[in-house]
Amino acid sequence: MIVLGIDPGTATTGYGVVEYQAGKEKLIKYGTITTPAAMGMADRLVAINQQLSDLIREVKPDAAAVEQLFFHKNTKTVITVAQGRGVALMTAAGAGIAVSEYTPLQIKQSVVGYGKADKKQVQVMVQKILAMRELPRPDDAADALAVAICHIHSCRLGAIYKS
Amino acid sequence: MIVLGIDPGTATTGYGVVEYQAGKEKLIKYGTITTPAAMGMADRLVAINQQLSDLIREVKPDAAAVEQLFFHKNTKTVITVAQGRGVALMTAAGAGIAVSEYTPLQIKQSVVGYGKADKKQVQVMVQKILAMRELPRPDDAADALAVAICHIHSCRLGAIYKS
Repeated sequence: MIVLGIDPGTATTGYGVVEYQAGKEKLIKYGTITTPAAMGMADRLVAINQQLSDLIREVKPDAAAVEQLFFHKNTKTVITVAQGRGVALMTAAGAGIAVSEYTPLQIKQSVVGYGKADKKQVQVMVQKILAMRELPRPDDAADALAVAICHIHSCRLGAIYKS
Repeated sequence: MIVLGIDPGTATTGYGVVEYQAGKEKLIKYGTITTPAAMGMADRLVAINQQLSDLIREVKPDAAAVEQLFFHKNTKTVITVAQGRGVALMTAAGAGIAVSEYTPLQIKQSVVGYGKADKKQVQVMVQKILAMRELPRPDDAADALAVAICHIHSCRLGAIYKS
């Protein structure tokens, strides 16, 4: 199973592609899709849709996973993040990929085993699980890898409960 | 010039198509795109993208206009509205249509001539400008018609200033 984790935004959309096979997580690819601030909002969203579509054609994920969005104090940010998030969800589902959403608590619990883990602890565990030489960077890509791992763990748990 | 006004949302996306020719606004079509609450968020966004794409192919607008989104007290609503808005902006721009954004103040000022006009006053003016037999309904479609008219007025002003 190949899982595409997405950390949406308008300026920066993080992505992380993880394969789960024979009981092991394997890092396929990770990085960010960025759009220039000078570009109009609608065109930035088109760029996100196109680049995410290209990535999906390239890595052919079986599932996509996205962190749930909650209220931020900076409401201007929440609007632009949500607009990018809408395009990301639509792009994945429009390509026929099932999209799952997880809360920050679920992701930390799943990756670190502790719901109040900080960003650094999550990144250290992502590095360990995926046998990476360095900490995953930047934060948006690390968060995308974390939600992909969370989805894999969630599917494994589902399989255990079913059997 | 044919203008597609859009009032975005996830449950309901209002649209209003207005043609401006020989100094007159003419109503082409208006209504709403609705998605069932039982459908998952990502699939609802795909449905909005598909139905809006169909509408664009049908009415072939030269321009699209959308109201700017500001902070609402109900932040859960602002997130779902912004997600739908992101998909609407992307769908129009992805079809090669220039998208303009207007504040509520600009729309009221442009349609009614008074920036603090209430919803009813805006609808009465939309009805009058477009020579409709009844008030435009529902609110989402009326708002979409209002932003389309605002864009037409804005282009006319631009043309006057240029000459």
